[in-house]
Amino acid sequence: MKLLRIGEPGQEKPAILGPNGEFYDVSAHIDDVAGEVLSDEKLNELSQLDLVDLPQLDPNQRIGACVGNVGKFICIGLNYADHAAESGMDVPSEPVMFFKATSAISGPNDEVEIPRKSEKTDWEVELGVVIGKRAKYVDEADAMNYVAGYCVVNDLSEREFQIERQGQWVKGKSADTFGPIGPYLVTRDEVSDPQNLDMYLDVNGERRQTGNTKTMVYGVAVLVSYVSQFMSLQPGDIISTGTPPGVGMGMSPQTYLKTGDKMELGIEGLGVQKQTCVPAKS
Amino acid sequence: MKLLRIGEPGQEKPAILGPNGEFYDVSAHIDDVAGEVLSDEKLNELSQLDLVDLPQLDPNQRIGACVGNVGKFICIGLNYADHAAESGMDVPSEPVMFFKATSAISGPNDEVEIPRKSEKTDWEVELGVVIGKRAKYVDEADAMNYVAGYCVVNDLSEREFQIERQGQWVKGKSADTFGPIGPYLVTRDEVSDPQNLDMYLDVNGERRQTGNTKTMVYGVAVLVSYVSQFMSLQPGDIISTGTPPGVGMGMSPQTYLKTGDKMELGIEGLGVQKQTCVPAKS
Repeated sequence: MKLLRIGEPGQEKPAILGPNGEFYDVSAHIDDVAGEVLSDEKLNELSQLDLVDLPQLDPNQRIGACVGNVGKFICIGLNYADHAAESGMDVPSEPVMFFKATSAISGPNDEVEIPRKSEKTDWEVELGVVIGKRAKYVDEADAMNYVAGYCVVNDLSEREFQIERQGQWVKGKSADTFGPIGPYLVTRDEVSDPQNLDMYLDVNGERRQTGNTKTMVYGVAVLVSYVSQFMSLQPGDIISTGTPPGVGMGMSPQTYLKTGDKMELGIEGLGVQKQTCVPAKS
Repeated sequence: MKLLRIGEPGQEKPAILGPNGEFYDVSAHIDDVAGEVLSDEKLNELSQLDLVDLPQLDPNQRIGACVGNVGKFICIGLNYADHAAESGMDVPSEPVMFFKATSAISGPNDEVEIPRKSEKTDWEVELGVVIGKRAKYVDEADAMNYVAGYCVVNDLSEREFQIERQGQWVKGKSADTFGPIGPYLVTRDEVSDPQNLDMYLDVNGERRQTGNTKTMVYGVAVLVSYVSQFMSLQPGDIISTGTPPGVGMGMSPQTYLKTGDKMELGIEGLGVQKQTCVPAKS
């Protein structure tokens, strides 16, 4: 099952993606794709609905972020060995964790704002893991039972803010629109092997990132278990699992996003995002 | 005005603190001490209520975190010169920013959990700034207009997780119960000078931290403006402004919290928190 949120920001209705790309309105059954709706029980109930009985939404409406009311937007750094190398950093001996502001979350095709005074806004295609039930001190063997599903994340990053402005990466990871998620949440039963998904990102039609989740240093089960040792995870929390090589910071010369640039990114089975860069809004 | 949230976790009712410590129930007027309720307009409306017309809540009930539905829990590091020195770090040339998980937030007198495998759980009394309206690219001169009020924060920190476990402090700042806030939110009209407030923290009756917000490196207006250059702030977001000297990591020998230890901490005009340490729960 593929779940979406359709409508203007703050007004999104929950929907199921139909076999021909239709948006089936499930707002009579759930309030939002968020929180307790992400439990196995509730997702199973939703999957029993007969799509022909559901009203359809206008297919030309905006697609919102695929999860609402996200409590924590957790990211894993340097989780592809070849990306660590291009960043000039060692592969970490245990996962590197940082946060993005949840206010950075945006729809998969919304405009991406280049922050004021930014000269180093960069792209990062990543596999996002959406938590389905509360997890604290979870074993690796049991970790996948806490996963509701997966989505595409663009972990936009201002490299000067992140690295050159007095420590702690959150400063360069949290601008408004720096967290497109979606287009849809794909429930975990539809992803037979999350550690074997092709992924790519293009800028202005040129391929920049090519990767596959099989080269992750720490896989999904390890990460869910690991994060849960340091904090509890709640339904709707997102863990973004790191990016493969090909970011702008790793190019020679380094190349960053500017107003008018267009990104397209996707992960096998999880859909495609398309964003255009614009100046920061107030 | 002093606003509280009274009741069991997840069931808190909004209240106004009376002159003799009474809890006046304002749940007929607002849903929660959260979000849009923190605007100047709404706070002004609340302040016009005649307390004698309001029902009183049982004074023996639990006091919850003083703000509900916090979107971002932003912390400023090394913001007192003497604390930076005891941590063996330089005063930063601009504010150091990191996040705590919002799932770490707890009531001011709730038990504090020592995480599994923790040997370095530490205390930090801090002035918390509660945002009242959306702020993005705000000037310093205008910044105080975005502040709803202030509260006491204990920025509990696991130093090994924070510093010795592969980068990014969030790993040691985010355990459940690592963010007691309250007992109340004091609206900014009641705090004549946020840069001249005495603060203290005791462990088992011994004074550990003594400070005053006048020795902050970067004051409240600077911080609100600064953070708003990197991300938008929403009503209910909290900026915790750093801790004065006297943390356990700075003692000789270093001294950390263990099960059964009792903390008491307070800031002038903002009330007192009391916590007892217990083993982590699952």
